[in-house]
Formats: sequence, structure tokens, C-alpha cells
Amino acid sequence: MTTPQMLLAIQIANGYGAQPGAWRMPGVDPSGYTDMDVLVRHAQAAERGKIQLVFLADTPALTVDLEREAPQMAVDPLVVLTSMARGTERIGLVATASTTLNEPYTIARQFKALDVASHGRAGWNAVPTSSPAAAANHGLALPPRAEKYERAHEVVQIVQALWGSWERAAWVRDVAGGRFADTSKIRPVDLQGRHVASRGPLPIPPSEQGQPVVFQAGGGGNGLEVAARYASGVYANPFSIEEGRAHRTALRAAAERVGRDPDEVELFAGFMPSVASSRRAALDRRRRLDEVVDLDQRVTYLGAMLGLRLGAEQLDEPLTDQQLAAARPSPGDPRAPHTLEIAREGWSLRDVLAHGVIDYHPVVPGTAADVADHMQQWFEAGACDGFSLAIDVHADGIDAFVDQVVPLLQERGLFHRDYEGATLRDHLGAPDQYGLDPRLAGAAHASS
Amino acid sequence: MTTPQMLLAIQIANGYGAQPGAWRMPGVDPSGYTDMDVLVRHAQAAERGKIQLVFLADTPALTVDLEREAPQMAVDPLVVLTSMARGTERIGLVATASTTLNEPYTIARQFKALDVASHGRAGWNAVPTSSPAAAANHGLALPPRAEKYERAHEVVQIVQALWGSWERAAWVRDVAGGRFADTSKIRPVDLQGRHVASRGPLPIPPSEQGQPVVFQAGGGGNGLEVAARYASGVYANPFSIEEGRAHRTALRAAAERVGRDPDEVELFAGFMPSVASSRRAALDRRRRLDEVVDLDQRVTYLGAMLGLRLGAEQLDEPLTDQQLAAARPSPGDPRAPHTLEIAREGWSLRDVLAHGVIDYHPVVPGTAADVADHMQQWFEAGACDGFSLAIDVHADGIDAFVDQVVPLLQERGLFHRDYEGATLRDHLGAPDQYGLDPRLAGAAHASS
Ligand SMILES: Cc1cc2nc3c(=O)[nH]c(=O)nc-3n(C[C@H](O)[C@H](O)[C@H](O)COP(=O)(O)O)c2cc1C
Ligand SMILES: Cc1cc2nc3c(=O)[nH]c(=O)nc-3n(C[C@H](O)[C@H](O)[C@H](O)COP(=O)(O)O)c2cc1C
Repeated sequence: MTTPQMLLAIQIANGYGAQPGAWRMPGVDPSGYTDMDVLVRHAQAAERGKIQLVFLADTPALTVDLEREAPQMAVDPLVVLTSMARGTERIGLVATASTTLNEPYTIARQFKALDVASHGRAGWNAVPTSSPAAAANHGLALPPRAEKYERAHEVVQIVQALWGSWERAAWVRDVAGGRFADTSKIRPVDLQGRHVASRGPLPIPPSEQGQPVVFQAGGGGNGLEVAARYASGVYANPFSIEEGRAHRTALRAAAERVGRDPDEVELFAGFMPSVASSRRAALDRRRRLDEVVDLDQRVTYLGAMLGLRLGAEQLDEPLTDQQLAAARPSPGDPRAPHTLEIAREGWSLRDVLAHGVIDYHPVVPGTAADVADHMQQWFEAGACDGFSLAIDVHADGIDAFVDQVVPLLQERGLFHRDYEGATLRDHLGAPDQYGLDPRLAGAAHASS
Repeated sequence: MTTPQMLLAIQIANGYGAQPGAWRMPGVDPSGYTDMDVLVRHAQAAERGKIQLVFLADTPALTVDLEREAPQMAVDPLVVLTSMARGTERIGLVATASTTLNEPYTIARQFKALDVASHGRAGWNAVPTSSPAAAANHGLALPPRAEKYERAHEVVQIVQALWGSWERAAWVRDVAGGRFADTSKIRPVDLQGRHVASRGPLPIPPSEQGQPVVFQAGGGGNGLEVAARYASGVYANPFSIEEGRAHRTALRAAAERVGRDPDEVELFAGFMPSVASSRRAALDRRRRLDEVVDLDQRVTYLGAMLGLRLGAEQLDEPLTDQQLAAARPSPGDPRAPHTLEIAREGWSLRDVLAHGVIDYHPVVPGTAADVADHMQQWFEAGACDGFSLAIDVHADGIDAFVDQVVPLLQERGLFHRDYEGATLRDHLGAPDQYGLDPRLAGAAHASS
């Protein structure tokens, strides 16, 4: 492989799709939230497209308006990923587990169990929790930010040390000699931090990839420090090529500062494609999805983003010339310049919203070529190493992406035609690591 | 059904079997510890025998001698049970999760996710932890016993309240009307105990059985109190019919004292059958298994149990007449009287040990009829409501039990011929319960 190729993650958590209205679209099983058959089928479709990994974001709290919207989270990440492991062969399986609300031993055991069960396909997105509701579910109040990150370092270090507590050659399984394991190669970790501690060892031998891959997301400078030290993949939300490049440059520099090769950390930019036969058809698809959301509220939000007072009565009209002239994109919202561009094209406000201008990732509603063009442009500009796809409706949206966009990316030499190996580390080209990274030994937060 | 029938649980945790030497027997995959295919096949074999449930005991610590023995625990109970859920249709799926080392929100979410994923087949064995090694893995020291049980009550109550935080009719899924859920029927629990707390609600709607079934094990009078209030099933280790009857009588009385029908709580007696074509063949099977264990140590232990000094040099000899006359069964060991009976039959010490006299459950090495006779005798004497089977070697031992013992029990009218329904509650005849048991409202440990 001479030219670099992009990596793809896909977010599949609730059995419906990334859009709040996905649960009621035609062809969608309205019980998909709890039905592992549905979730496994979606993972299988992604695997058909050679997508490197499934990613389940997770915050242990109910925060959406369930009157109209499905939870965005899985019933439980471990149950969903284990189900997917049973129904797929190659695709990576990654989920968030909070470093604020969990003990390192539990994270280490559950993710490594998933790793051996999936034959080396597990990954852990290590993030502190910023949701007070999630903390309250655990009977806690959120600690100050500095403490949260101090604990995050301790948790990741203890988890990785536990993962390495069986040397690779420890699991002998010598039937004739009656020796199950070489216990001189299985050792406690005996790590004690300020916030968490564990003796170990973990009861689990190495997987086909040794141990799970660590991911990281968000958190500004503190998050960058966690990512630079431990992560092989970073989930990010840039809203422009410039933002993506800035984040990726900062991440690579931070990795280098701790002695790592910057190519060891891959930035996945969140991205929401809505694929249809034309841009108009894609907008109609998204308008249908918008029927479940509160458009009055969204139009007000749109106004705030553009420095205008907008109301629902204008939903089926474009901005007037006066409005366009008066518009002042909010400097605090990275989505605002793109929103104004779209509005200038003369779409009705309903269609401007259908462009996903206020969604949590950049949206491209259009043909497969439109989507592939956008991805190529971002990737070639160095805005990211790949994308974390949030597909509007899983039931038909994953197939559309896999059958229409993936072949275009492959033809353009931008995406692999098959998995490079059997493990998540293989898919990412992530270097071998077992236990703690010895290059970080000097930076230990937890000590024995 | 007029005559009561026994219930059967089967312990399948490590992919090998209940005997420490199982991992190296012929036909056993020495990698079965981490291989979900192997574990799923064992669960499927048990399901073919209409066994009501799989039970995974769990203590989060490595305590066996891994040089010779496999871990007795699963790599992770949730990963193993979810894998089994994907490969089976009816059998119940029950595991231990410590009330000492886990937060109620995590237990509630993970077990209810397993419950919806398995269409109503999950159960939770709620026990405090008595292993200092397990506590040290979580960076903790064990609290005093009274505190452990105070916390156990709080954890179970909050877990059950979280399970009930969506009313049964809350999950509307009205596609045409655009209503996902009726949020007036989804409420936080806002429970605060002395040790743990949770706001809720849980993000999970009811399963086909409403919520998971609660089990309990061990713990003397404190454990009995937990069982009486919350459990539908209790795992116990009686070594004689008298012990079983005493435990069962105490359990039923305790349940009645808190206002429950004693038939709502079923006692499962631990039992280790070794099925072969003859008693001699069964003993040879177990002798082969004993090759991996330290027989010198076991013979010393046997001596202590009988009040004799015994050494390895006598392994292939029976007790002498003088030894038999001098033997004083240890009053502190409930297995001692049975051990002396076996020794009196004139077996070599190696064969006495092959009878499993120092195992952690009663053992019957013999034909299918011997095993069925033992079970019938215990069951008809009221020593238990069923058995928790620890099969010596899963690879062929589950088939032997299912194909040879189960038909005998069925012919004798002692065991059902098919599952009574689709859920674990159906299998147990456990009464419907959703949320906390309202009969226990007055005994709340956690309050809002
Ligand atoms: C792409 C992306 C994915 C994220 N995924 C999660 C997640 O799954 N769970 C979560 O609790 N937070 C998630 N976050 C939130 C960040 O981790 C959040 O920034 C973090 O909690 C930082 O909080 P802080 O501002 O207190 O540092 C994500 C953030 C980004 C940008
Ligand atoms: C049949 C049976 C099964 C048990 N299963 C478990 C188990 O899976 N995990 C565990 O930690 N303890 C288990 N125990 C141990 C009891 O829960 C133990 O008695 C409990 O930790 C009580 O401790 P205590 O003596 O401090 O009350 C089991 C006990 C019995 C009798």
C-alpha cells in the first residue's frame, strides 16, 4: 500500500439510526432497541462493506425526550457488542466505558473478555463523564475536571497493566504434562493511585491481538493528553476541514511529545451521510425524519445561529434578501458559516434544516458521489485519518453506504478492498502493545 | 401437574467442567476457557435436556493453582451469558454479581440488558463478597459483615426499583402517532441508602418476563434474610438430606415471616454426578481427573477429616481394620460421616477420593440409575426443590446426564418433559414481579 487509505468506524447503538426519528421510518423494526437480531444484522451489513469497526458511544443516563425519540445509547454496550461478536467475523467492536464511574478491574475484565470472545476485535473508548445525570445514576456528584482527568490516567494505566498481567506465553495448556499455565508468567499488578487501585492479576490470557485497543474522545487539552499517551484512535467532531486539521496536528504533536510515532494515533471525524438518488431525494428523506422532532424549536435555534429572529411561520420560505444581509453567523458555533452558505442557496428553512446544519456531525445529504467527494476532500486535506459514520437510518442507510459509497471510495483508491487481517489492531495498523506502553513508564500516575 | 417436579440448574463457567482436571481430558478443547463456541455448545446440550437454567458462580479473583487447574470462573459472566443467549432459545441464564463490589446502576443495567437480549431469561445471584482477593482487585478491603449485608439489601432494592422504572406499558412505539414512549410512565427512582444510591430511570423497557429473577447463595442467617425477601431461587450446599431439609425449612419459614408464599423460593442443592456404565467405570473416570490434583495433599486432608494420620504411601490400600476402628469423623465437617461409610466399603484411598468425598458438593459416581436414585431420594425427602449440577467434564458429561439421567427422571415423573414457557420465570413457576416487591415496602433499607 503506497497511498494512505481512510479508516471507517460506524456508530450502531440503538437499532434504529443516528436520527432521532429513525425508529419510525418504513422498514425499521420499532423494537430494534432491544432486539439483538436487528443490531447484529446492522453490524453484518457494515462488515460486508469492510468497515473497520463498530463504535458504541455511551453515557449511562437517559437524556433524550423519549416521547418522540429513541435513546441514542445501547441497552448495554457489552451485551450489544458480545451479540455482534457472535454474528460477525472481522469487524472491530468498540465502546465507551467511563473512567469516572467505573473501577479499572471491571473495565479490564469486561473488555478483555470481549476481546478473547471476539478473537481480538475489542476496543475501549476511555473517556471521563461530563453528564451530571450519569453521575447521579451512580449515586455520585461529578468531581472537578482536574480530578476527573487525574483519575482517567490512573484508570487507563491500571486497566492496561491488568491486561498485561498474563505474559503472552503464560497460557501453556500442556495436556500431556498436566500444566495449565506457567504461573511464573502471571503476576499481580499491585497498582495504587490516588483514586483507584487494583491488585490483580486478571483471570484472562492474551487475545489474538494481545489486548483491546484504546480510543479517546473529546475533553480539550486534557483529553488530548489522554489520547496522546494511550490511544490508537480518537473520535472527534470537527465541523470544517480547518478544525479537523488543527485537531489532527495537535494530536500528532502531542503523541510525538510523549515519544510515540504520530502515525500510531488515528483521528476519526464524525460524519453523517444521507445517501439517496439525488440531493432533493436525500433532503426529502431527512424531512421525513424531521417529522418527529420539534421544528419550531429548531427554527429558533437556526435563527440564533445566524443572528436572526426566525419563527415557524417561515418554515416553508427561504431567508429574505434583508435577512441574508442582516445575518451574523454566531462566532461560538463552528456550524454557522456552513449554515449561512446553505441558506444563501435559497432553500426553504425546512430544507436548510434538512441539510442537517444543526446536527452534531457534518451532514452530507446527496448522492453516493456527493458523499464520497466530501470524504475524499476532507481526507486528502489532512482533516482526519478516517470517519466515524453516524448513519441516519440503519435499516437501509448502511446498505446504501456499503453498496454505493464504499465502491466509489475503493475505485478511487481511498478505502481498502478487504480487511488486512483478523484483529482490530490489524485493521487499524495499530502497533502491537501488551500491558502498559513501556515508553510511558516515566509518566506513571499509579504506582505500586 | 399434580406431583411437584424438581428443577435443574447447571453450572457452566469455564468451558471444561467442574473438576480441576477437566481441561485435559480426552475430547476437551484445552482452549475452552476463552472459546464462546465451546461454552455455547455446552449450554445447547443442557437446553436439549430441558434444564431450567445455566448458573455461573463468580468471584472476581484468581484463587486456584493455575499451574495445574483452570480458573473455575468465566472470563466474564456477562460476556459468556450473552454469548449463550445468542445460541439458545429457552434455557435460563443466571450469574453472580457481587453486592459488595458493584454499583446498583451497573448491575441493574447489565442484567436487564441481558434480560431483554435473551427475551426474558436472565437471573442475578445477589451475594456479598467474602474474598479479600476480590476486594483487593477492586482496590478495597472487605467491610465488616453487618455492613456488607446492609449494603446488600440496599443494592438489591435499588436494582429492583431501577428495573421497574419503566412501567410495563411505557414503551408505546406508536409509529403512526410518532410517540416512542409514554414518559409519564417512566420515572426516576431517587433512592439513597447508607452505602449506595441511584437516581435513574434505567434506559431499558420491560423484558418478556418483566425483569430478571433474583437468586441468592450462602451467608448463613444474614444470607437467609436476603433470600427470604428477594430471591426466587437459592443455591445451597447441603451434604446430607438432613442438612438440606433444615436449610429448606428455615428458608421457607423466613419467606413466610416477610409475607411471602414459601413456594415462591426454590432451594437448589449443589450436586456432582459422574455418570458412567458402572460405578467402577465412574470411579476410573474420576481417577483420571484426579491425576492433575495433588493427591498427597488430599490424602492428608482425608486423614484430618477422619481423625487419622494418612500418607500417600497408602493411596492404593484401603484403611486397615485398626484405622477404621480408630477413625473419628471430624464434627466440623459435614462430609465426614459419608466419607467414613465409603471407607468402610473397603475401597483404596485413591478410590475413596475418587468418590469425591472431599469435593464441594455431594458426588455420586455411578450409573445413570444410581444418579437418578440419589436425586429422587433427596427430592422426595424434601431436602431441596431441585439441584444445581456441577458436571465433572462438560464435553461428554452434560450429554451423559441429558441422554441417560434426564429420561429416567422424566419416566419417574420427577422432571418436566419440556419447558413450561419461554421465560426463566415460566421455567421456575416464579410469580410475576416488576420493580420492588410491594409486600416489602415497609422493610425498605434505601429511601428517597
Ligand atoms: C466524538 C466524540 C465522542 C464522544 N463520546 C462520548 C461517549 O461515548 N460518552 C461520553 O460520556 N462522552 C463522550 N464524549 C464526550 C467527551 O468525552 C467529553 O468531551 C468529555 O466528557 C469531556 O468532558 P470535560 O469537558 O469535562 O473534559 C464524546 C466526545 C466526542 C467529541
Ligand atoms: C451454593 C453457593 C454458591 C455460591 N456462589 C457464590 C458466588 O458465585 N460468588 C461468591 O462470591 N460467593 C458465592 N458463594 C459464597 C457465599 O455467597 C458466601 O457465603 C457469602 O459470600 C457469605 O459471606 P459471609 O460469610 O461473609 O456472609 C456461594 C455460596 C454457596 C453456598
